[in-house]
Amino acid sequence: FFSPVMTNTITEDIEVLVFLPKNNSYLFSHTRVAPAILYAQQRLKAEGGQYSGFHFNIQFENSDCVNNAFLTLVDRCGQKPDLILGPVCEYEAASTVRLASHWNIPVISAGALAAGFSDKSTEYSHLTRIAPSYVKMAETFTAIFEHFTWKRALLLYEDDAQERNCYFTLEGIYHLMTDFNFNSLAVSPDNRPDMDDILQRIYENEVVIMCMGADRIRDIMLAAHRQQLTNGNHLFFNVELFNSSSYGNGSWRRGDKYDNEARQAYTSLNTVTLLRTTKPEFENFTLEMKKSVEKARFPDCKDCESINMFVEGFHDAILLYAIALHEAMKNGFTKKNGSEITLRMWNRTFEGIAGQVSMDVNGDRNGDFSLMSMTNAEEGTYEVVANYFGANGTFQLLPGFNIDHFTLKVRQPPITEIQDKSC
Amino acid sequence: FFSPVMTNTITEDIEVLVFLPKNNSYLFSHTRVAPAILYAQQRLKAEGGQYSGFHFNIQFENSDCVNNAFLTLVDRCGQKPDLILGPVCEYEAASTVRLASHWNIPVISAGALAAGFSDKSTEYSHLTRIAPSYVKMAETFTAIFEHFTWKRALLLYEDDAQERNCYFTLEGIYHLMTDFNFNSLAVSPDNRPDMDDILQRIYENEVVIMCMGADRIRDIMLAAHRQQLTNGNHLFFNVELFNSSSYGNGSWRRGDKYDNEARQAYTSLNTVTLLRTTKPEFENFTLEMKKSVEKARFPDCKDCESINMFVEGFHDAILLYAIALHEAMKNGFTKKNGSEITLRMWNRTFEGIAGQVSMDVNGDRNGDFSLMSMTNAEEGTYEVVANYFGANGTFQLLPGFNIDHFTLKVRQPPITEIQDKSC
Repeated sequence: FFSPVMTNTITEDIEVLVFLPKNNSYLFSHTRVAPAILYAQQRLKAEGGQYSGFHFNIQFENSDCVNNAFLTLVDRCGQKPDLILGPVCEYEAASTVRLASHWNIPVISAGALAAGFSDKSTEYSHLTRIAPSYVKMAETFTAIFEHFTWKRALLLYEDDAQERNCYFTLEGIYHLMTDFNFNSLAVSPDNRPDMDDILQRIYENEVVIMCMGADRIRDIMLAAHRQQLTNGNHLFFNVELFNSSSYGNGSWRRGDKYDNEARQAYTSLNTVTLLRTTKPEFENFTLEMKKSVEKARFPDCKDCESINMFVEGFHDAILLYAIALHEAMKNGFTKKNGSEITLRMWNRTFEGIAGQVSMDVNGDRNGDFSLMSMTNAEEGTYEVVANYFGANGTFQLLPGFNIDHFTLKVRQPPITEIQDKSC
Repeated sequence: FFSPVMTNTITEDIEVLVFLPKNNSYLFSHTRVAPAILYAQQRLKAEGGQYSGFHFNIQFENSDCVNNAFLTLVDRCGQKPDLILGPVCEYEAASTVRLASHWNIPVISAGALAAGFSDKSTEYSHLTRIAPSYVKMAETFTAIFEHFTWKRALLLYEDDAQERNCYFTLEGIYHLMTDFNFNSLAVSPDNRPDMDDILQRIYENEVVIMCMGADRIRDIMLAAHRQQLTNGNHLFFNVELFNSSSYGNGSWRRGDKYDNEARQAYTSLNTVTLLRTTKPEFENFTLEMKKSVEKARFPDCKDCESINMFVEGFHDAILLYAIALHEAMKNGFTKKNGSEITLRMWNRTFEGIAGQVSMDVNGDRNGDFSLMSMTNAEEGTYEVVANYFGANGTFQLLPGFNIDHFTLKVRQPPITEIQDKSC
């Protein structure tokens, strides 16, 4: 009487609480991300597969990147949801995940990327991170530093002392690369930075890893260029995780009188960014997301046609949860067993909207990253010169890669040491 | 029929939730502090005054300095207390106070001393701090720096990356003294510090403010002494808020072969500590506390006979709450109006167990602090040479104060500038 597919179908109502900012200034605002979650919900149902019996009742609540998600959840103490998606912002996620874990509710976020969330042993036990964390990004720097046998670097970042994205981004490097020697310099986004101090610190270091706004990066690169710090004695890296599509166009260009100088300076600047894949289904997803954003009358949305990692991640969160819940229920557990479902989301690879999604044993998504460099100094154009694949830890050099570009012209180049050994 | 006192008596049951560590390693452990709270409760009743109609039902819960207080409170969402005392530890207090404020419950703590809690505008709106915060301590350094027209200093501290007491202590200085130029150096308590680095940083600075364990302070002072950094070119300060009674005995002394050197080194070391007052009633309180601790079979309790600021503070918390609740109820508010009661605890001076307690308009206790210096280099004995009184901001020099001791023998001494002006 039942088809094989039908025997696998399990019926269940799932209460989902989603925390996304109503404020449109975020890459992960409700307007941008909510359609992706609804898309996943509807696709699961429409496809009629083994997850089509799951009825996701999705309630969206505002996230203000401070405390709103936490307070909304706390007031649900008499009526707890089965699944929480978000929040993205670190501090808001910390308090929310802590409470959800205590209440045995799984949380999936495409944010909460800071190193502190890696410790799932106690207060973040129910957190699954569906986007690559900053520590995953840092694996790319480990691969780069090991490849070039670099030992130390300056971490230069903008710190707003509020959401602290750049602080947490470079903290991932500091957290993971404990065998390396880092010193760090924070600049406030509100004040003009002390450029003399920055240049002095760059001078003292050969490798500089930066995280800050594109305009400030350009100011620093121009200042460094004028001090002859971009002629091969120093190498600069910029971490640009979420706006990759705009970067390759050449962010040195502003149409002002400094463009020429900036292009020259940027020959020393390399960018680490997310490696994004797509597949045919992704086209339809992109189209639908674009329509939704347009329908939401979100006219000043920069870059809205491109799907960022938050949009993609929260879509895939629904799929991952469905897989894990289905498996848990087939094994006799209920949707209320949050820790059981959480563990079944970890150490698992599944097909996401844009390609394979690989979750590590700690419930954090493995990340693939690209290293971009200027390969045509005349045109000032960038290319991906290397890729890092997190699932197996490989660092792949591409044809555009040029070893000279990454060889520091220093008083005691590391090359010498290697030659000494071969003598 | 009623005496004037009786007409003022208001009867009310008050549910109090107290968060203190069962772990005896803390100065604010349950064993040490709980008797003080019970003492205050019983005294209010026994004295038969206008607060004798208040029945405090006190429930003690464990605080683990991580998350326990918060999780205990969250699970009381159906049965909220009227008043919360503690927690002391910064991170645990942050989440607990945030939730209590959301639930309109007053929190009084002799901890939560970090600068972040000073902002009562949103998430810490219901917090009253009954012990002087680190920012209050920093006022003393402002007074000292202004007195000697110093502009800059090195902040040198031990950071355990867990409870971070010394980090938060010196952060108070950094937070308050924004017109001064500070640079900071953190050392881990787990590893041997890089003494060369520390000495280099001391060399570059004239004034050094330290917060770390007594043994490590001694190691640094000895190393500085051997590098001729204690001969008047540099001045050292040590912040020692809670163990003041032990300090004056001369913590340079260890009975080892370095005592003589250490005594010489410590001529350059000054200590900022809490100024404590006592009054006759305090004697009985001290006696009762001692009995309670003995009864609790707490044999290895160091310094248990002396009442620290946590013990005193949590005692006074009950008094302050009683005063505010009484006033609120007389004005027609109920005990459930947490914000009303909280505001009535602020901007108020009352008689605590050890003397007058002055709360500022922001609900933080004003602090009095002492500056101690070695006044007899032969004997290596210390004396209080100046006091800072927080309520009115006065800095008082005492007879033991010697200007030469605080005059830096530098290339360009600040003295010259002052003389130039008088010419």
